[in-house]
Amino acid sequence: MRWYVVASLLTVLTSSQGILTTLSQSNGGYKYDYATVPFLAEVFKLLVSSVFLWREMQNSPPPKMTMDWKSVRLYPIPSIIYLIHNNVQFATLTYVDTSTYQIMGNLKIVTTGILFRLFLKRKLTNLQWMAIILLAVGTTTSQVKGCGGASCDSFFSSPIQGYLFGALSACLSALAGVYTEFLMKKNNDSLYWQNVQLYTFGSIFNMGRLLMDDFRSGFEEGPWWQRIFNGYNMTTWLVVLNLGTTGLLVSWLMKYADNIVKVYATSMAMLLTMVLSVILFNFKPTVQLFLGIIICMMSLHMYFAPPSTLVDLPLTVKPVSESVSEVPAERKTDS
Amino acid sequence: MRWYVVASLLTVLTSSQGILTTLSQSNGGYKYDYATVPFLAEVFKLLVSSVFLWREMQNSPPPKMTMDWKSVRLYPIPSIIYLIHNNVQFATLTYVDTSTYQIMGNLKIVTTGILFRLFLKRKLTNLQWMAIILLAVGTTTSQVKGCGGASCDSFFSSPIQGYLFGALSACLSALAGVYTEFLMKKNNDSLYWQNVQLYTFGSIFNMGRLLMDDFRSGFEEGPWWQRIFNGYNMTTWLVVLNLGTTGLLVSWLMKYADNIVKVYATSMAMLLTMVLSVILFNFKPTVQLFLGIIICMMSLHMYFAPPSTLVDLPLTVKPVSESVSEVPAERKTDS
Repeated sequence: MRWYVVASLLTVLTSSQGILTTLSQSNGGYKYDYATVPFLAEVFKLLVSSVFLWREMQNSPPPKMTMDWKSVRLYPIPSIIYLIHNNVQFATLTYVDTSTYQIMGNLKIVTTGILFRLFLKRKLTNLQWMAIILLAVGTTTSQVKGCGGASCDSFFSSPIQGYLFGALSACLSALAGVYTEFLMKKNNDSLYWQNVQLYTFGSIFNMGRLLMDDFRSGFEEGPWWQRIFNGYNMTTWLVVLNLGTTGLLVSWLMKYADNIVKVYATSMAMLLTMVLSVILFNFKPTVQLFLGIIICMMSLHMYFAPPSTLVDLPLTVKPVSESVSEVPAERKTDS
Repeated sequence: MRWYVVASLLTVLTSSQGILTTLSQSNGGYKYDYATVPFLAEVFKLLVSSVFLWREMQNSPPPKMTMDWKSVRLYPIPSIIYLIHNNVQFATLTYVDTSTYQIMGNLKIVTTGILFRLFLKRKLTNLQWMAIILLAVGTTTSQVKGCGGASCDSFFSSPIQGYLFGALSACLSALAGVYTEFLMKKNNDSLYWQNVQLYTFGSIFNMGRLLMDDFRSGFEEGPWWQRIFNGYNMTTWLVVLNLGTTGLLVSWLMKYADNIVKVYATSMAMLLTMVLSVILFNFKPTVQLFLGIIICMMSLHMYFAPPSTLVDLPLTVKPVSESVSEVPAERKTDS
């Protein structure tokens, strides 16, 4: 499968996630315990990956599977980073309002670019760096509160701790992505075997989270396994399936494409969700959404288009004879 | 003089124009007749250009001056376009509110690019087209009303005539610029002789406008020449001098640089004015101003930076020997 097909699918499914989650609410709230959704999605991903791995093992040659502890112990690390990240997110929200929080979230696009360069040693051209910054600017533009009751000075008036936690959160989010890419690419193990390890730890950590919630509430509503499907309906199951599927697609992209592709897919999904909300939920379209979409489209083109289609390429080697000099000049006008 | 020095000077002076005009107001209104300002600026430009032309005529060889009617008759055309443009602007404002009007004004950046390509036959790379669109998007972003009382649905709810007149206005504004560039570059006449022709007609047309105003008001306040300096103070004179000087700089750019340089200079000036307003007049800084500045800076860099500094250039001619192949590879890392 080509990476851009997977990326497009990820965009559509991530976007549906927002719509489905909204549809799964009743009277503006959840009838079910939202924390059960990521847990079930991890279990779903584990099951799907196990089935695929099992099928791969019937084939010859069998899939490559590194099983020693030195390798396996690297797989809980993404879950640990996400755990820390969740707590930092929580801390950030005690200092800033949700709209500032949402805007700061776009910083992770830039931090992903930086960690991608630093840890994975991947070189980007200056134009690609500019594209990444523009992607962050574009998504932020689309989120600027346009009118109505929003207070003017909310963004620049949060305490400094809020911005620091926001920056830390962006770094952790980028770190989790970049680390996962490193993990998936470090050897040519079967994708499904890598997934099984990743999602086993993912399921355990999510189960731990449900247990923690139970302890916090003093088991008032009983242990999580007794009420896990309470309030579930068709839409809730679709939310679980969708979240699981997007997770599997991200995993594929981490192995066969990269973090920047994922960042573009999820940013485009955010814009698509906003456009769909205008259509489905009668949200008011804003000028800033329109501007944000143009900026992100430009950014996408700047990052992925072949440089020869963007600029006139000068000759790097001086032509020797006249006939040689004519050929590139003609090509130039074509591009 | 290098074009970027002139362009920077134009940015600073255009920006000061906004600040000075605000400072020249008392209690939110003008004590003087604002229509006298562009007239006096035209006269100022005519005087300055005449003096420079006279000095040039003392030198040998004398400046090149095409004086036949076939050439001279082309010089009132910019004034005529501006006259039509002013009336279209007026018509636009009867259909749309000032904030929508201001946002539509940025369309002239794109129309200038299009007419520049169509009439002056100047080729732009795809990256430069993207830069021009981003410049328009960036200036628009900075102007999005952020909060407070602004109504949500003002932008998309004007009658269709408003948008059509707005588009026509953007085309006329671009046409005036592109036509002036054609005029200044069509032969190697002295810049000052070209200016003298341009500003003679400019002064006449502006005088005509003052006279029209007098007729409209039924000469209630007497003819314009009797009250031309009424309410003038030091700041008003600075506004006149500043407007005249920016006009002379634009004229220079039209001959020795081009319309796109001018468009960048004036767009950057708009952002500079907003930043200075935050500092000088305690305007509240908005996220969208900050985003707009980043977008315009990226656009500036995309348009003017040498392509070799933006992308990794592939070899257009296959290297023959190893020593040849090394040279461009090394150059690439330098850039």
